[in-house]
Amino acid sequence: MNRPGLMRNLKITVEYDGAAYLGWQSQGGGKTIQETLEGCLRQITRENIRVTGSGRTDSGVHALNQAANFLIAKPIGIHQLLRAVNSLLPGDIVVKTMEEVPLDFHARIRARSKIYLYRINNSPIRTAVGRQYVWHFPQPLDVAAMGEALGSLSGTHDFSAFCAAGSTVRDRTRTIIKSGIERDQAGLIEISLEATGFLRHMVRNIVGTLVEVGRGKRLPGEIPVILDGRDRVKAGPTAPACGLFLQEVRY
Amino acid sequence: MNRPGLMRNLKITVEYDGAAYLGWQSQGGGKTIQETLEGCLRQITRENIRVTGSGRTDSGVHALNQAANFLIAKPIGIHQLLRAVNSLLPGDIVVKTMEEVPLDFHARIRARSKIYLYRINNSPIRTAVGRQYVWHFPQPLDVAAMGEALGSLSGTHDFSAFCAAGSTVRDRTRTIIKSGIERDQAGLIEISLEATGFLRHMVRNIVGTLVEVGRGKRLPGEIPVILDGRDRVKAGPTAPACGLFLQEVRY
Repeated sequence: MNRPGLMRNLKITVEYDGAAYLGWQSQGGGKTIQETLEGCLRQITRENIRVTGSGRTDSGVHALNQAANFLIAKPIGIHQLLRAVNSLLPGDIVVKTMEEVPLDFHARIRARSKIYLYRINNSPIRTAVGRQYVWHFPQPLDVAAMGEALGSLSGTHDFSAFCAAGSTVRDRTRTIIKSGIERDQAGLIEISLEATGFLRHMVRNIVGTLVEVGRGKRLPGEIPVILDGRDRVKAGPTAPACGLFLQEVRY
Repeated sequence: MNRPGLMRNLKITVEYDGAAYLGWQSQGGGKTIQETLEGCLRQITRENIRVTGSGRTDSGVHALNQAANFLIAKPIGIHQLLRAVNSLLPGDIVVKTMEEVPLDFHARIRARSKIYLYRINNSPIRTAVGRQYVWHFPQPLDVAAMGEALGSLSGTHDFSAFCAAGSTVRDRTRTIIKSGIERDQAGLIEISLEATGFLRHMVRNIVGTLVEVGRGKRLPGEIPVILDGRDRVKAGPTAPACGLFLQEVRY
């Protein structure tokens, strides 16, 4: 519990099923995760709470641990606030952790890296249970070739070739710290990417390109050429949103 | 491919997300898995196909591998039929395998045992991703006590105490061949039960009773007394349908 009137900065981790939302934060109108969270927090606190996310996630993209922070004046206990917000939030959003952080903590600016996970069901038969959380790609994929292509994206590059067309971000240099691809016996392929930051559609454009490599339409050796071209049309298509998860934000 | 006019018996395994259905087969009106499958098969074959399941699953219950069979006269290849039916079925139902079996094969009568899986999220925080496939039970549960109670259900018993009220089934003797309960680090509890057959609501009533044991409201040693009583009101409440999966039917 806090003294009345004293402002606190609370950091939260949020899990959400993005299917019903226009993303974390929308430019236009429509239901977003951020606004839904803010609505619940405002209802509890009667304050004009503004939630700052570590970054946006696109329409339909899920998160296991999105990070965010907000300032709050109401002297309410953290456990009580956590329970209250989760009881107001719809079933497809849940606040998993809540902690007080220094007032200068900023969920976006302070993020050191983010980890995204992309899931592909690479078996001939689609799934019914959990179909909301995977991209079904029935044709055979050469995972070793995809891994080679993925590995050549590691390190610091200008990722313009993998950035959504129309993005106004100027500095498109990002660093992929770690990446991995695995396929289990049931044909589930999981691709993970940790980077200092991500451009809009970057993971989905990388996955779409990897799948073309996996199909033999491109060679792993073409990746450096695609990067050098800095041209979105040189890379593969954008993989569907439903297979993508923001897994972790590291500070 | 088959000669025209010659009847074949096809066995299928079916995965479904039961949330939108009144179960495998309904007594009254409403959308069922069986009728949805039959509708697609009839559209392809123009025959009055009747699908026989290994047994019913209740409204909202899922299946990873429900087994069923049907007779078909149309001389269509199995792979072609499998592709056709999956392209017509909605996303929450998929036929995973299809094979020709002897004409005397009957999915219900020939079933030797069935395995059900029940999933409980036993962490204080609910899940958003995958919330459709788990029962959230936030209070602490003593899994060792639940395991002891579960173990005492093994073997052949009259399971009247765990059978849905109003069931007209007379012989309520069933044999639990194998059972298990495990809890992972994230607090997900998985309970599996293999039996020669199951009564209506049997798994969910067992799970509801085990949860009362896990809460300390009942002792594991009460299970034999509950069984002996053969009275539904002596056992615990019915656990929600969404956590239940028909995992496998053995022949």
